[in-house]
Amino acid sequence: MQFISEQHLADGVREREFTLGEIPGILWTPASASTSAPAPLILLGHPPLGLHKMYPRLVDRARHSAADGFAAATIELPGSGDRPRWPAVEQARADLRRALEAGEPVSDEIVDRLVLPLVDKAVPEWQAALDALLALPEIGGPVGYSGGVISVGTRLAVVEPRISAAVLFAGSFVPRVMFDEARQVTIPLHVLLQWDDEGNDRQSALDLFDAFGSEEKTLHANMGGHTGVPQHAGNAAAQFFTRHLK
Amino acid sequence: MQFISEQHLADGVREREFTLGEIPGILWTPASASTSAPAPLILLGHPPLGLHKMYPRLVDRARHSAADGFAAATIELPGSGDRPRWPAVEQARADLRRALEAGEPVSDEIVDRLVLPLVDKAVPEWQAALDALLALPEIGGPVGYSGGVISVGTRLAVVEPRISAAVLFAGSFVPRVMFDEARQVTIPLHVLLQWDDEGNDRQSALDLFDAFGSEEKTLHANMGGHTGVPQHAGNAAAQFFTRHLK
Repeated sequence: MQFISEQHLADGVREREFTLGEIPGILWTPASASTSAPAPLILLGHPPLGLHKMYPRLVDRARHSAADGFAAATIELPGSGDRPRWPAVEQARADLRRALEAGEPVSDEIVDRLVLPLVDKAVPEWQAALDALLALPEIGGPVGYSGGVISVGTRLAVVEPRISAAVLFAGSFVPRVMFDEARQVTIPLHVLLQWDDEGNDRQSALDLFDAFGSEEKTLHANMGGHTGVPQHAGNAAAQFFTRHLK
Repeated sequence: MQFISEQHLADGVREREFTLGEIPGILWTPASASTSAPAPLILLGHPPLGLHKMYPRLVDRARHSAADGFAAATIELPGSGDRPRWPAVEQARADLRRALEAGEPVSDEIVDRLVLPLVDKAVPEWQAALDALLALPEIGGPVGYSGGVISVGTRLAVVEPRISAAVLFAGSFVPRVMFDEARQVTIPLHVLLQWDDEGNDRQSALDLFDAFGSEEKTLHANMGGHTGVPQHAGNAAAQFFTRHLK
């Protein structure tokens, strides 16, 4: 992990860009984080639109996390942003768009091609990032994962024992096979669902919530469309992390 | 409205039992409530099990409300507690129990007989209580309604313009006709659903949430069975009232 830039935001949050091999990422640490008082960490998931495009929302989430005493970090997804393009996934995305525009049902086959390669490749990268981040003296456990592609968060919750709690955003198509993985999740979950999300299948999201094996899981459904998560829902997610990571 | 007893609880909350005609009720006011600083009011709904039986949970909710600066009040439901028995509704309850014990689906006809008379009779009583409570100098608006039989809360939200926001508990059977009323609700709603509620139809609860006409509505689903609403869910409901009634 190599730091390539550093700046201090107005509220004392330290923002550092880094690369992990070929993967760009950003780490935010609260002013309070130090070697003697390492901060717990929240991994900030995001949709595959590129870190540059997502930056305003990511930095906003990171600053809220920092205000609660958490470090936050994110990495670029494979095939997004400045990383090499990924023709197979782009083809699946084009097929999805075509199906949606034609008003056709989105086939399982398209969803599998769209999501599964991303999960398979992104999850080990997040784990490698976690190795590097937890080696920093100012970062400690426990670790939470928040948002992004719900199948990535689900797989991470299953395979990565260092993640203690997760906020998942039910806002993307879910391959059938992920329902079996969901049953293996046991960590506390806080699932956000935008009830009238135009690009999401509500019933599939409810079925996935039902499938999660966690004894403590909570679903918060709100109005406002895919990008309209209300502020109070963000606050409730932050309270969930404070309950479980502190 | 006639006060028949008064005591001060340990945290300074003033608890007064009253009667409104033949209807028993309880009013809790925070120490801060006064003629010059009247407290906003939360009406505490409850299932038809009688005020005596429900008292421990009601006083707990009232004290939490008082800590947030709210007065809280409740009245006995028709046919419950010390009020005259209501053979028709008791018959419906027996029929429901029989159907559940036999593992049969609960018919719309039973649900209608069980819930609709209660809604028709209870709602005007809550409105009369509201008239009397708002006439007290230490109680002001705005008013919230919380919990209890969801069809009672739904009807109240439609017909009672003095109620500005409601926390509804999706934990009882809902007559078909209430879905039409739900579409007429426009106030902010916070709906609690116990995901694995043994005595409740989850799909019907989700359909009812979908039907509510409110622009701001949020659904919080949790594990733990009918009576196992986790403490963080109660806190989130309290935050909803603080957002909307203060």
